[in-house]
Amino acid sequence: MCQLLGMNSNTPTEITFSFSGFRQRGGATDDHRDGFGIAFFEPDAQSGQISLRLLHDDRPSFCSPMADFIHAFPIKATNTICHIRKASEGSHVLVNNHPFVRELWGESWVFAHNGQMAKNFIEQLPPSQNFYQPIGTTDSEEVFCYLLNRLRQKFATKPNQSQLFDFLAAVVTDIGTTGIVNLLLSNGEWQFVYANTLLFYVQRQAPFMTATLIDTDQTINFADTNQTSDQISVIASTPLTRDENWQQLAVGESLVFKHGEIVFQQLPKCPVYLTIAQALDLAEKACDTL
Amino acid sequence: MCQLLGMNSNTPTEITFSFSGFRQRGGATDDHRDGFGIAFFEPDAQSGQISLRLLHDDRPSFCSPMADFIHAFPIKATNTICHIRKASEGSHVLVNNHPFVRELWGESWVFAHNGQMAKNFIEQLPPSQNFYQPIGTTDSEEVFCYLLNRLRQKFATKPNQSQLFDFLAAVVTDIGTTGIVNLLLSNGEWQFVYANTLLFYVQRQAPFMTATLIDTDQTINFADTNQTSDQISVIASTPLTRDENWQQLAVGESLVFKHGEIVFQQLPKCPVYLTIAQALDLAEKACDTL
Repeated sequence: MCQLLGMNSNTPTEITFSFSGFRQRGGATDDHRDGFGIAFFEPDAQSGQISLRLLHDDRPSFCSPMADFIHAFPIKATNTICHIRKASEGSHVLVNNHPFVRELWGESWVFAHNGQMAKNFIEQLPPSQNFYQPIGTTDSEEVFCYLLNRLRQKFATKPNQSQLFDFLAAVVTDIGTTGIVNLLLSNGEWQFVYANTLLFYVQRQAPFMTATLIDTDQTINFADTNQTSDQISVIASTPLTRDENWQQLAVGESLVFKHGEIVFQQLPKCPVYLTIAQALDLAEKACDTL
Repeated sequence: MCQLLGMNSNTPTEITFSFSGFRQRGGATDDHRDGFGIAFFEPDAQSGQISLRLLHDDRPSFCSPMADFIHAFPIKATNTICHIRKASEGSHVLVNNHPFVRELWGESWVFAHNGQMAKNFIEQLPPSQNFYQPIGTTDSEEVFCYLLNRLRQKFATKPNQSQLFDFLAAVVTDIGTTGIVNLLLSNGEWQFVYANTLLFYVQRQAPFMTATLIDTDQTINFADTNQTSDQISVIASTPLTRDENWQQLAVGESLVFKHGEIVFQQLPKCPVYLTIAQALDLAEKACDTL
């Protein structure tokens, strides 16, 4: 399985602090050693154009020269998606490293997944056109292509956000019936988040406090690095800091973050929250059945 | 305008030497200062899967930390496409930096362009479906999307190479009637090259000789870095070395390199070769008419 890290904010923000802790899980504090990937959406202040920078490495993130580079030359982004990999399906080859990217409606869409799909899960889902095809051999990229195919089939052009988020929530709920699905998805404007086992988020805003990473010995005072108007949400498979108020997503919950705030939420009627141990146990069993 | 650098080889090969000279043209020996991009296709020896790594920077290549990183941690690839930018159309924003990438038939296709298109050039061309859309604002990305749309419309699934190269040559010849078009295109297996003003290539194979860069003081003996079975072709807007036999593409010529060798060539009946001065003059006039 893998782990996810996402960030959404109202101003371009470095992910350096969170990434410092998260990258340790790729070989140092945890065993997600099969490479990593990180996508940065950078808005241009003048034109409003959003640029995507997508960096991958097949080496473990805790010791990757590319991860060192990201640390040395921080990139400020309003949406960031990072993934560290422990290969369960799909060989340990760079092409299988998340995040994946495709163009939809003239935008870059980026996706990362933590989970494990049932064999032939696509056949259990409503049919869709087959425009987007996986390049690598992971079930995760199949999920991404299926999701985009459903979107494209439903909307020839970009719908309004309300229509879009309602439909996205419906499709990921469909997909969630066929495997373990925790995902991050962004077009650079917003970040869509869905979990059916394990994801957490924290929202940072004034008054900013200090935070201490769990995976490495580092403390930050966010008041030193942020303006009072800054709004930042960070999403992670499990909490990255020991002294912040991380919220867990319920099983089957969809959320959308925009400008650092929640702008859409779809919560099951009777929310269920797994413990981390329960979620890891489910993940282990899913791998065993393959 | 911009400059192009491509490499195609039969074994994964570092582009470090050529890149050392080429990157100087991004701000040191020439004025292509508006960022750069480089795409590496890396085949996996075991699975045969081809991974794409695409790195961009909006800083000038001669002083870019990302270019330093590429130099310090060379990536071995069988197809490499690099582009340094001098913005003529489309603002100086990272999203406008070549190479561009799209998925077609389950493969990553990568494209870089040097040239300048006529206003509304698409309207002068045979119509095509509109599945691929530009994300940035360059005419180059429009060219790429048009090319892929034509391909996709013609072939629902991947055709054989002969059909593919014939059709590609026909479409780029169409496109070449509407502007200055020098381009590199690769799916990781082969590299398609077309020029209607200026492109050169050199083929390196045993017996390997020494070569000296034009843009920086560096000499290499390729016999030290290659096996006798290695075949490498390098393509560039203008020659990178002063002591090798660079061949110029004729105006309107299409070539395909695979495993370091030419596997397809379409040459006009009466080949014309521009001087570098003539080509630069055409480029300048094209910019002035916008």
